[in-house]
Amino acid sequence: MAHLDRVFHSLSDGTRRAIIAQLACGPASISDLAQRHHMALPSFMKHIRVLEESEIVVSRKTGRVRMCELRPDALTAAQGWLEQERRIWETRLNQLDAFVETLAAKENTRGHK
Amino acid sequence: MAHLDRVFHSLSDGTRRAIIAQLACGPASISDLAQRHHMALPSFMKHIRVLEESEIVVSRKTGRVRMCELRPDALTAAQGWLEQERRIWETRLNQLDAFVETLAAKENTRGHK
Repeated sequence: MAHLDRVFHSLSDGTRRAIIAQLACGPASISDLAQRHHMALPSFMKHIRVLEESEIVVSRKTGRVRMCELRPDALTAAQGWLEQERRIWETRLNQLDAFVETLAAKENTRGHK
Repeated sequence: MAHLDRVFHSLSDGTRRAIIAQLACGPASISDLAQRHHMALPSFMKHIRVLEESEIVVSRKTGRVRMCELRPDALTAAQGWLEQERRIWETRLNQLDAFVETLAAKENTRGHK
């Protein structure tokens, strides 16, 4: 599975997006995150694993607590892909606009002859 | 399934991203797209259906040909979500920077006393 596949797969679930939103505000422990999402730890851990596999989240144990932190590079990769496609799309629309304007101008010139 | 779930799920597959990239350059028929991806039509149609369910792609029949077109609104929604999280993340980092600077300034003042 390619990295972008994993990143977008991570983002395709509301709980995982909520975890990302929370971690954007600062690191949090897994038990805090699980409590906030009213989820049993085993189901919650599956979401954390998906987020870790896509490198959106890293977790490390500090004493008895496992802390999660956001790694924004993976999100930047996803944003980059979307931005690139948008640019191609907008360039095409601008070219279409320019083409239509050229046609209209020609039509106008012909009308005035 | 929420709309953003569907959009990000659509984006989580390399073939579907390639279809989006191609449609960003202009509409194309399903058979053209399938040929370009060296894929049998039934497997290819599954990808098109996923893209249609997330409203990234619309297809309509013109005579005997089914044409696909990109609908960029769904991609804009995905970009919007990522952009929002980045802003929260960056605001937090800036606040942390400011806090560290304040601490350093205080430390400096104390050093000069």
